Amino acid sequence: MRATLIHGPRDVRLEQVPDPVLHRPTDALVRVVASCVCGSDLWPYRGVRPTPHPRRIGHEFVGVVEEVGADVRTLRPGQFVVAPFTVSDGTCVHCRAGWFTSCEHGSGWGGQDAEGVATDAGQGEYVRVPLADGTLVAMPDAPDADLLPSVLTLTDVMGTGHHAAVSAGVVPGSTVAVVGDGAVGLCGVLAARRLGAERVIAFSRHASRQALAREFGATDVVEQRGDEGAAAVRDLLGGVGADAVLECVGTKESMQQALDTARPGGQVGFVGVPAGGPELPVRQMFDTNVGVRGGMAPVRGYIADLAAEVYAGTIRPGAVFDLVLRLDDVAEAYAAMDERRAVKSMLLP
Amino acid sequence: MRATLIHGPRDVRLEQVPDPVLHRPTDALVRVVASCVCGSDLWPYRGVRPTPHPRRIGHEFVGVVEEVGADVRTLRPGQFVVAPFTVSDGTCVHCRAGWFTSCEHGSGWGGQDAEGVATDAGQGEYVRVPLADGTLVAMPDAPDADLLPSVLTLTDVMGTGHHAAVSAGVVPGSTVAVVGDGAVGLCGVLAARRLGAERVIAFSRHASRQALAREFGATDVVEQRGDEGAAAVRDLLGGVGADAVLECVGTKESMQQALDTARPGGQVGFVGVPAGGPELPVRQMFDTNVGVRGGMAPVRGYIADLAAEVYAGTIRPGAVFDLVLRLDDVAEAYAAMDERRAVKSMLLP
Repeated sequence: MRATLIHGPRDVRLEQVPDPVLHRPTDALVRVVASCVCGSDLWPYRGVRPTPHPRRIGHEFVGVVEEVGADVRTLRPGQFVVAPFTVSDGTCVHCRAGWFTSCEHGSGWGGQDAEGVATDAGQGEYVRVPLADGTLVAMPDAPDADLLPSVLTLTDVMGTGHHAAVSAGVVPGSTVAVVGDGAVGLCGVLAARRLGAERVIAFSRHASRQALAREFGATDVVEQRGDEGAAAVRDLLGGVGADAVLECVGTKESMQQALDTARPGGQVGFVGVPAGGPELPVRQMFDTNVGVRGGMAPVRGYIADLAAEVYAGTIRPGAVFDLVLRLDDVAEAYAAMDERRAVKSMLLP
Repeated sequence: MRATLIHGPRDVRLEQVPDPVLHRPTDALVRVVASCVCGSDLWPYRGVRPTPHPRRIGHEFVGVVEEVGADVRTLRPGQFVVAPFTVSDGTCVHCRAGWFTSCEHGSGWGGQDAEGVATDAGQGEYVRVPLADGTLVAMPDAPDADLLPSVLTLTDVMGTGHHAAVSAGVVPGSTVAVVGDGAVGLCGVLAARRLGAERVIAFSRHASRQALAREFGATDVVEQRGDEGAAAVRDLLGGVGADAVLECVGTKESMQQALDTARPGGQVGFVGVPAGGPELPVRQMFDTNVGVRGGMAPVRGYIADLAAEVYAGTIRPGAVFDLVLRLDDVAEAYAAMDERRAVKSMLLP
């Protein structure tokens, strides 16, 4: 089959790789119907994180079950499934508590599973899915072309934006600010409104992203950054900061923006993968009682509820995809996002 | 009158200072009935924080209203009052949201009030209280000698321990670990049990503090620290970390202990004044979804509820005082805490 490998900075290639096969009776084999490029894929693409040797890449995909192992109980061939961005058994103490990303037998795509067997990544034609019952979520039926992008967001960005909102403690009536106008930040806007936020202020300097933020329910857009940005939010909110701030970037600057934008006693929900290990200014948190909570989103647990709304048409997170390419053009899918010509690229086989 | 000044490391003195007078119609004058030394007073006492010039010290006191300004509406001479460790107006947007420590007209004791007038500190005979209606909380009556220590804890340590528990998200059935066996940590144990925690594990290596922790409701004591300490907590909790961890020290090591002791998705409630500005490892927080929330406790908002239980006798936080001295012996009150001969020193005029 064909699958994407990253070789180094700005060097991703579609290559021939071995066809996956079932290794264990709890595995399933999935034919990828759609995949996409994540903002966090850009860290190795840009060389911010090293790529010591070529490796498979891509952790967001949906598809059809082709084959299941003898011990797979909840899935059958032909079902359309959403794969969250991590593998989880669904049965360990952390999964049962909803923290699927801390699964005792968890793993990621394109590395090794918990038993040391190589796993496929998402930007390819087929994927062997370990612990299939615990990992995959079956959809009621295969989405049509209109619905497909929104279903695809459930693998990561919509669930991650939702996790930012949940971690920030968004409740009905909350005032919310969102740092980051990438796909996750935009989904965070949507998630915050869905949870009942009264005001949602999106930080964005890009006209197309501002438009999408407003489509997703942002009530205001702030173009300033730093102290000016925080002041602009306070101006919009009667002189106080936001109850909840969603940090959807992962840099020291974006986290500082988030902390500065929250009101005393407010909460930052962060989901941006920390790039370069920024640390948090604990003294500022102490003085302001602004909490910080979040991390790798346990999206497995969010898929069912969000899918119901996607299928019902009440939310349409798939609007974050503004570029659709064939897998052959995966290099362009990365380049377009890297150069900010696209918010998010979808890949079809 | 006589009041305590700190001159430098290990140099506190009781001295003659001017008698306080009412400066503004919103002031009250309070005769101090009891005060005490705070763990955070030990930072300048130990030279961890500089003392560039002699200054008044002490931010925990209770007493009797002697005189009120013309605009004071809720207090009258003769009432017994609890003073939280910060001044607050009670009316600004932050006070109304419960964040009294972020009051727009707030200040501390022994510095300057919001209008630049010097304020008295707690370890003395009398205190001018700015914004008296917003700051002081009147008790139903003057506590007797048995009750006095518990009422005195409402100025800071009991409210701060409670804030740690609230910030850590303690709810009925929670498993809790408490880092720090000083007065605040011990009050944190009491607060966690009061909020319904099922298990409360106290980190402590001191027999007398362990005994007090158990008296306050700790179900277990762990003597190990670092990785061993975190492992010991997991052993007690069926292999997972604690739902909620109270960080009641304020060092980089204690915060790391707290983060390492929480379960994935758990929460650290921190109230230890950050000493030397330790920062938080955001990558660990991202990987584990352990949140961090807390800070300077808005104790003003907790006093009424906690006082009701203190007067009813259902909680007895005053047991943290294991040394009672006259104000003349304030130097010994500090030395005993510094040398860990006392958990907490109470001072009578």
